[in-house]
Amino acid sequence: MNQFSFKVQSTIEGALGRTGEIVTPHGVIQTPAFIPVGTKATVKSVLPESMKELGAQALLANAYHLYLQPGPDIVDEAGGLGSFMNWHGPTFTDSGGFQVLSLGVGFKKVIAMDETTFRSDEVIADKKERLAHVDDDGVTFKSHLDGSMHRFTPEISLQIQHQLGADIMFAFDECTTLHNTRGYQQKSLERTRLWAKRCLIEHGRLTQERVGKPYQALFGVLQGAQYEDLRRKAARDLAGLDEDGITFDGFGLGGALDKAKLGEIVNWLCEELPVNKPRHLLGIGEPDDLFVGVENGADTFDCVAPSRQARTSAVFTDDGRVNLTNAKYQRAFSPISESCDCYTCTHYTMAYLNHLFKAKEMLASTLATIHNERFIVNLVDRMRASINNGDFYALKADFMGRFYAKRNLAQ
Amino acid sequence: MNQFSFKVQSTIEGALGRTGEIVTPHGVIQTPAFIPVGTKATVKSVLPESMKELGAQALLANAYHLYLQPGPDIVDEAGGLGSFMNWHGPTFTDSGGFQVLSLGVGFKKVIAMDETTFRSDEVIADKKERLAHVDDDGVTFKSHLDGSMHRFTPEISLQIQHQLGADIMFAFDECTTLHNTRGYQQKSLERTRLWAKRCLIEHGRLTQERVGKPYQALFGVLQGAQYEDLRRKAARDLAGLDEDGITFDGFGLGGALDKAKLGEIVNWLCEELPVNKPRHLLGIGEPDDLFVGVENGADTFDCVAPSRQARTSAVFTDDGRVNLTNAKYQRAFSPISESCDCYTCTHYTMAYLNHLFKAKEMLASTLATIHNERFIVNLVDRMRASINNGDFYALKADFMGRFYAKRNLAQ
Repeated sequence: MNQFSFKVQSTIEGALGRTGEIVTPHGVIQTPAFIPVGTKATVKSVLPESMKELGAQALLANAYHLYLQPGPDIVDEAGGLGSFMNWHGPTFTDSGGFQVLSLGVGFKKVIAMDETTFRSDEVIADKKERLAHVDDDGVTFKSHLDGSMHRFTPEISLQIQHQLGADIMFAFDECTTLHNTRGYQQKSLERTRLWAKRCLIEHGRLTQERVGKPYQALFGVLQGAQYEDLRRKAARDLAGLDEDGITFDGFGLGGALDKAKLGEIVNWLCEELPVNKPRHLLGIGEPDDLFVGVENGADTFDCVAPSRQARTSAVFTDDGRVNLTNAKYQRAFSPISESCDCYTCTHYTMAYLNHLFKAKEMLASTLATIHNERFIVNLVDRMRASINNGDFYALKADFMGRFYAKRNLAQ
Repeated sequence: MNQFSFKVQSTIEGALGRTGEIVTPHGVIQTPAFIPVGTKATVKSVLPESMKELGAQALLANAYHLYLQPGPDIVDEAGGLGSFMNWHGPTFTDSGGFQVLSLGVGFKKVIAMDETTFRSDEVIADKKERLAHVDDDGVTFKSHLDGSMHRFTPEISLQIQHQLGADIMFAFDECTTLHNTRGYQQKSLERTRLWAKRCLIEHGRLTQERVGKPYQALFGVLQGAQYEDLRRKAARDLAGLDEDGITFDGFGLGGALDKAKLGEIVNWLCEELPVNKPRHLLGIGEPDDLFVGVENGADTFDCVAPSRQARTSAVFTDDGRVNLTNAKYQRAFSPISESCDCYTCTHYTMAYLNHLFKAKEMLASTLATIHNERFIVNLVDRMRASINNGDFYALKADFMGRFYAKRNLAQ
């Protein structure tokens, strides 16, 4: 009945990194793998066929956005997320935990909320209205679309995610930031643990209720900020949860992360987690972070950065990022990268892309996104191959040396 | 050397309409044919492969826009328009005559300019600055992008179009409107005739200069507004031009048109024009106008309407236009048209499109444009088949009855 499985294939000697295979009802994901984001059931400006062609093995959509528009009942009636958006491979949905808190207060990655400071009826120092309030039962928040009030609880998030029908879902968690005190992180972690239990119970109920539908796997989300003891506790706690035989199928490594501590944090978590369950590092997609994540045991990754940067004309090359609107590309009758096999690089010049961005043509976003997504998907694919071949560290040194070589140069 | 030819295949009994075949260096166009517009060397939001898949036989770009951005020298260096934009079939470029006058004064279809009222140093009644000034030698205009001053003459337009490298180019003409007096129309027509001669001479010179490049055909543009004598004179004049053996390869039917008189005007022109040269009806793409144009002898058509309307969520069905943002389509789990074979209709529901438009996702434009372009391309393809089968009028009656049935109903 459980149409979800994971097995490890090979490992990096002396590290927690590994290759593996996740089996879902909609197909197999070879790991490590980068999962492109289609927040609102579309990778912005790109056809799903192009995503498949560029090597995407799965797509990740967001429960918060799809709850507000079009509504999970509509996606359910359409046959689930994949059918709705014409993507026939595996799908993930984020729980909405991060969005209800961060979008609710109008912040992006740097968010600061706790129960005392995030009351919707208060106004914070910078005059932004506080749009999210968290309590032990859930989160009340204002829609960023129309200001209407809504409430997410662990149960509601799971109900929404079951309606969306993705192969892999995430438990509803409280997302803290590095600005919170240790005391608050500790208290919040316990709340997230209790929510995780409720998620498992509701997940068990919904799986029974929706019998006959393809199995949806549930990943628990691990918080704990930069504190080793909290991170390790989070991993042990959630890995140990068992509600009448219902356990997490995998884990999401989430929350506030200081870039410099990313490897350490992933390592703490993965040391505690069972080897035989997959680990998804949430919202991480920078090349150096991907190397660190893979090395320390993360199996899958998602991030909006490749497509968001593409839409602002910033594209990846082996020698670092370049901006396509730079005047020097006006007559660059060569692809973004000679070594790239993507549709954009095999059919268009930088001169054409420069023109499209300057002319504000939508196709600019399409072509740049295809390239960036291919670049990152392929980079993680190369990491997988290098682990299987036993030369992960050689790839890392080569890539990092070249990609970040310009870091210290004036550009 | 002249790699351009046209031959008529069959005709509509009792009318001037016909099917035929235009041969260009980049491929064949079966006529009648609708030519989708890619103003700035891209059909907005759609990949060229999608345009090919939906049946587009050729694309039309605009000399004015490409002159301003990226510049015709860049397109030339890229190997011409087709190579630049990754479209390997036939291409057309409009001369820029319409745009320098209409965009210059900030008007769209309804334009009113003549030499006395359109001085760039005057201000017209509605307080808009006059940005275009026409004289016997050419047009001085202000860029709509940055306000810089530019000048087009027949020679400059041809130089630009030769650099752009399209298979079919248009002569530079003065575009009048229905608001101009008969006296002005007459005077303007003579100016356009003299410009046509200069276009032929410059075309001959450039064709020699650029020997070895694929042959580019030049179509003369016929003006004359709503006056039968002027229209017939325009056709006879331009069909009769011969500058050292250089004649027009075809004709563009242009200028101010009262929709009710469209058939009559096309008929006057086509009665005067030689049978063995193709006729392109400029800027026309409404279904009823296409039937009238085909019936009266036009072979090819271009128009931004299918894509422009698509981007505002208005899509074609056999029962007329519908707006995808209408709340009734929120749960419409069926394609825009059950009978449509386009990529959009075979892979997506109206519910998904409704969601994409409401979520302001770029893919909404992509999918709606693919459908609308397919609808219009296919409609003209059906006209071609019906002429070959001898049942053009049956198709016309069927289609028009159904498509416009709702016209008199409150909607």
